[in-house]
Amino acid sequence: MTPLVSIIMGSTSDMPVMEKAAKFFDEMEIPFEMNALSAHRTPDAVETFAKGAQARGVKVIIAGAGMAAALPGVIAASTTLPVIGVPVKGSTLDGMDAVLSMLQMPPGIPVATVAINGALNAAILAMQMLALSDGTLAEKLTAYKIGLRTKIEMANAELAEIHFKFKTN
Amino acid sequence: MTPLVSIIMGSTSDMPVMEKAAKFFDEMEIPFEMNALSAHRTPDAVETFAKGAQARGVKVIIAGAGMAAALPGVIAASTTLPVIGVPVKGSTLDGMDAVLSMLQMPPGIPVATVAINGALNAAILAMQMLALSDGTLAEKLTAYKIGLRTKIEMANAELAEIHFKFKTN
Amino acid sequence: MTPLVSIIMGSTSDMPVMEKAAKFFDEMEIPFEMNALSAHRTPDAVETFAKGAQARGVKVIIAGAGMAAALPGVIAASTTLPVIGVPVKGSTLDGMDAVLSMLQMPPGIPVATVAINGALNAAILAMQMLALSDGTLAEKLTAYKIGLRTKIEMANAELAEIHFKFKTN
Amino acid sequence: MTPLVSIIMGSTSDMPVMEKAAKFFDEMEIPFEMNALSAHRTPDAVETFAKGAQARGVKVIIAGAGMAAALPGVIAASTTLPVIGVPVKGSTLDGMDAVLSMLQMPPGIPVATVAINGALNAAILAMQMLALSDGTLAEKLTAYKIGLRTKIEMANAELAEIHFKFKTN
Amino acid sequence: MTPLVSIIMGSTSDMPVMEKAAKFFDEMEIPFEMNALSAHRTPDAVETFAKGAQARGVKVIIAGAGMAAALPGVIAASTTLPVIGVPVKGSTLDGMDAVLSMLQMPPGIPVATVAINGALNAAILAMQMLALSDGTLAEKLTAYKIGLRTKIEMANAELAEIHFKFKTN
Amino acid sequence: MTPLVSIIMGSTSDMPVMEKAAKFFDEMEIPFEMNALSAHRTPDAVETFAKGAQARGVKVIIAGAGMAAALPGVIAASTTLPVIGVPVKGSTLDGMDAVLSMLQMPPGIPVATVAINGALNAAILAMQMLALSDGTLAEKLTAYKIGLRTKIEMANAELAEIHFKFKTN
Amino acid sequence: MTPLVSIIMGSTSDMPVMEKAAKFFDEMEIPFEMNALSAHRTPDAVETFAKGAQARGVKVIIAGAGMAAALPGVIAASTTLPVIGVPVKGSTLDGMDAVLSMLQMPPGIPVATVAINGALNAAILAMQMLALSDGTLAEKLTAYKIGLRTKIEMANAELAEIHFKFKTN
Amino acid sequence: MTPLVSIIMGSTSDMPVMEKAAKFFDEMEIPFEMNALSAHRTPDAVETFAKGAQARGVKVIIAGAGMAAALPGVIAASTTLPVIGVPVKGSTLDGMDAVLSMLQMPPGIPVATVAINGALNAAILAMQMLALSDGTLAEKLTAYKIGLRTKIEMANAELAEIHFKFKTN
Repeated sequence: MTPLVSIIMGSTSDMPVMEKAAKFFDEMEIPFEMNALSAHRTPDAVETFAKGAQARGVKVIIAGAGMAAALPGVIAASTTLPVIGVPVKGSTLDGMDAVLSMLQMPPGIPVATVAINGALNAAILAMQMLALSDGTLAEKLTAYKIGLRTKIEMANAELAEIHFKFKTN
Repeated sequence: MTPLVSIIMGSTSDMPVMEKAAKFFDEMEIPFEMNALSAHRTPDAVETFAKGAQARGVKVIIAGAGMAAALPGVIAASTTLPVIGVPVKGSTLDGMDAVLSMLQMPPGIPVATVAINGALNAAILAMQMLALSDGTLAEKLTAYKIGLRTKIEMANAELAEIHFKFKTN
Repeated sequence: MTPLVSIIMGSTSDMPVMEKAAKFFDEMEIPFEMNALSAHRTPDAVETFAKGAQARGVKVIIAGAGMAAALPGVIAASTTLPVIGVPVKGSTLDGMDAVLSMLQMPPGIPVATVAINGALNAAILAMQMLALSDGTLAEKLTAYKIGLRTKIEMANAELAEIHFKFKTN
Repeated sequence: MTPLVSIIMGSTSDMPVMEKAAKFFDEMEIPFEMNALSAHRTPDAVETFAKGAQARGVKVIIAGAGMAAALPGVIAASTTLPVIGVPVKGSTLDGMDAVLSMLQMPPGIPVATVAINGALNAAILAMQMLALSDGTLAEKLTAYKIGLRTKIEMANAELAEIHFKFKTN
Repeated sequence: MTPLVSIIMGSTSDMPVMEKAAKFFDEMEIPFEMNALSAHRTPDAVETFAKGAQARGVKVIIAGAGMAAALPGVIAASTTLPVIGVPVKGSTLDGMDAVLSMLQMPPGIPVATVAINGALNAAILAMQMLALSDGTLAEKLTAYKIGLRTKIEMANAELAEIHFKFKTN
Repeated sequence: MTPLVSIIMGSTSDMPVMEKAAKFFDEMEIPFEMNALSAHRTPDAVETFAKGAQARGVKVIIAGAGMAAALPGVIAASTTLPVIGVPVKGSTLDGMDAVLSMLQMPPGIPVATVAINGALNAAILAMQMLALSDGTLAEKLTAYKIGLRTKIEMANAELAEIHFKFKTN
Repeated sequence: MTPLVSIIMGSTSDMPVMEKAAKFFDEMEIPFEMNALSAHRTPDAVETFAKGAQARGVKVIIAGAGMAAALPGVIAASTTLPVIGVPVKGSTLDGMDAVLSMLQMPPGIPVATVAINGALNAAILAMQMLALSDGTLAEKLTAYKIGLRTKIEMANAELAEIHFKFKTN
Repeated sequence: MTPLVSIIMGSTSDMPVMEKAAKFFDEMEIPFEMNALSAHRTPDAVETFAKGAQARGVKVIIAGAGMAAALPGVIAASTTLPVIGVPVKGSTLDGMDAVLSMLQMPPGIPVATVAINGALNAAILAMQMLALSDGTLAEKLTAYKIGLRTKIEMANAELAEIHFKFKTN
């Protein structure tokens, strides 16, 4: 099974954040691969990874990293596949170091940055890209979105059950 | 009983913050309604809510949301009722994302923003607006403010009881 | 003519920002008054102002200030009228000092904060409050909002006239 | 000619930033459309736009906005097409208000955020998405990237011509 | 015993921070008084306090507050005694709201701001001011400073006892 | 004439900011001295300065510096005189580097920090300290404060002369 | 054994952060010394330390400090040895106060700043400097870097063992 | 002449900042080389550069970059030479994006970061490293530092010539 999406993270300590993407792809039955490689500690492996991804059939890359989060930008430098960056909150700052390290890319080499720790949104964004040329995925996305809506509507219905003396709905 | 104020939040996870507003209205005997709807996940429901509020008799809307807190602004876009925004502190940043997402509204569509997690102040502000044309509420507000003052004065009196050798009051 | 809204600013140097509110009220034919008094340099005058506003017939107060912008909070401390705060951008920081000084009010004394230099939105918000008990103002507000919409739609139409070779609308 | 990409901005004042995307698509011969519509001032037009984009043949949406930049998120709420957000630097803050307003989207509704004023990168990112199912575009992307590289290498060669006494290359 | 220093805080919840100042004065045998009064909830009491301090024999005022920390500035507005501000870290932001609310005072009305939660330094600063005209206090200050130095030197001596194989001191 | 206040700055480039303090002392007829010495480039001169100030008759030190503004803290380390820090806005950041470098002093060694570029307030604060034991200065301070108030009241009176159709004061 | 590197910290409370540097030198068999001295509380000891380091055979100084972290800059002022600064996260702010206090040094006196709490990187950087004239250290550095790489590659291999239904590597 | 230091920048637009380093080396008669290569646009050239530097005789690398400034970190990943990072202020943010992108390096791969636009300090720091094994450079450094001191002392002497009525030095 050829992976359509490649999830990569700068360190296995990013796994609790990044596995939300893996679970989403599993649920959506989208084949994916997963690696932990560091732009700073294993630069050659990252370069090999980035240069080979397209040939392996990968369509979209999701790269999560914290601190001076160079990983998504470095990968984007060596591929023309779309790269989605997930800034991971670290132990000292609140994740803004990672946000700025991947958001503020120079003209020519974009990284599609999502929210801090936002691996689920990265996965949905990847699926939206794949769905551009895959009608089945497009339908699954629509169903997923309806599911989100239903979940909120049900939560709202439960909220209506909470009683205050002067609450009227 | 027609709700005069409508409390809406982007997610039921905002309830611990927003219920301070509900409790205040209950205490002040101001009829209110409460909903959890998301500008991003249930946009149509939010639009229906915003466009229908005035006709339902709602006078003021309090909208709490975290992260990219679009909810109060999106509601303000579809009503001429005053909209009060409560930025809710999230799990990654400290609430400044929500502050900026509702404070920095473009010319034409204001959102009255209060402190991070400041749902009680949002409720008092709503009551101040209602009191402009309701003398009973105005009196209750004055009494509430005197109560605040008394509470501090009593706390101050207790402080005077704490003894240090060189403390003179 | 009794002023319905009182515009107050911490210094006459805030006038270029605050006069946008004055012009809006003039256009909407809403009587207003205007003062420049400082919470730090003329505290007694501010207190007299705040305590007397309601009796003078004022319904809403708009207070603009920069730096350690105590003015709206200090006024809110001495009145139960709704107070709208306009953070004014200063010469050293970018206005975030004024935002935090008026947004982060303690429980009990709200200030309805709008965008940095957002005096126009403060005025619209004040009118929204007045419109709660004045049908004529409510109609003017609706018309104003339609005007905003029309202005954007016309700008959008002009944008359609800009030609690029591969632009299709 | 059906537009493949739709460029939308919150105000025509964003045009100097967003036209970099338009010029790129023109150069790459990718049909696009361009609109200026505001999430806050023309919410219905934005909703109509977002709901109709896919049916019109649009594959990717690029939304630029400043301040409380709700536009990309509000569009993403009403389509399953990928939405790229361009935070536009405003007159008071440095663009971080727009960054946080589009980056910090809640789970379920991603916005692919790029650098402040980074409309060119947004366009390249859109093309990368289109190239996933269009070999011609993929080749153009590769050529573009080689062009970037060559430009830097030539600049570097010129740098070698600058003489200092102790400079050795 | 006339209090030479007056410690005031915006809320009794600031007591765990502010009591470090009280303990220091006790240790230094400097008579002080202590109050909890709020610029926003008990404005008249604060004004009475500020206007009467000098007549009561107070020489220096230390005012601690969190959030939109108007207290030190409001006191400084009504007295010519030096006012020291202690920004108190709150539950949502990290204390920078309080810092900016007291640091960024307008020309004419200074507040001597110290570190976040820095009540001990506020007390030392107050004592430095008193010592300008009191030789006994000046001597105590010098002794206190020598004590600080000795404490560090002893800690450093203990550090020398920690052994690593390649550590040489 | 013995200087009572010593103004010191990290670089002569800080002179446009710091001369506001000098002018104030001149106006108030308070003898002062002025130096430009750097904690980082002339550490020995700064140490000599700090250790000798008290013996020379100096009562208060005002130290202005930008960037990693160590000057006031380093002086405070070698004297028990009160040290007032003036953070000077630099060419890259907005002065917050200097604020944090002087505000966040460790327990034991306070620096009384004022607003960014706030040299005038530093001078007033120094005078407030001197006035604690000098009745003439206390009177001058009171007169100065009345002057500030009068200036604002006159500005406010002029504001009353600006006419709008619906302005009522 | 002459120490080649000197580790100094502003307070023994910085020890949990700074001991990572000590452990690294121990592992690399590089002789070092360790002190806790404060730029603000023991300025003379720091000056003596800084002026004597080179004569004692020290080649590189690593200085860790929190808050208004003047220590590395003050040492750099009194030596021409390279000084590496480690900003230590404090109890109120997130370490950015320490970053700016050591990073933003004025022209002429550099401090080589590393990440917040980054004492290990400070030690590696010191070793890189020593390795410039010591081939054995250079070889150890290369081996250390290979070790880092291997550790990541092994973690990555373990990651490959985590199974999801649609995971393909 | 073998270059001892290699200056590299992410773009020739960084030249006005980085040439301060070049001029310093010229003045100090230290052979250097200069390149403009981008971590994101010419990754292979950067890798070749980083891997070959040591063999070419380079001892220290100074890398300047703005925005998501990956350059120094990416070079540090492929060499064991010390790498000094110069964060360059960009057109949208104030340089903090570049600071965080190079300062917050993960354990194992340090970058010695200096002030925003601080290329001169980077050069001095490089010289300090070289001076560890080159007595002539050590002497030049000492002379340079004395020069700095003299310059300030002369500026201070000029300051003494500025007359105010109440200025006493």
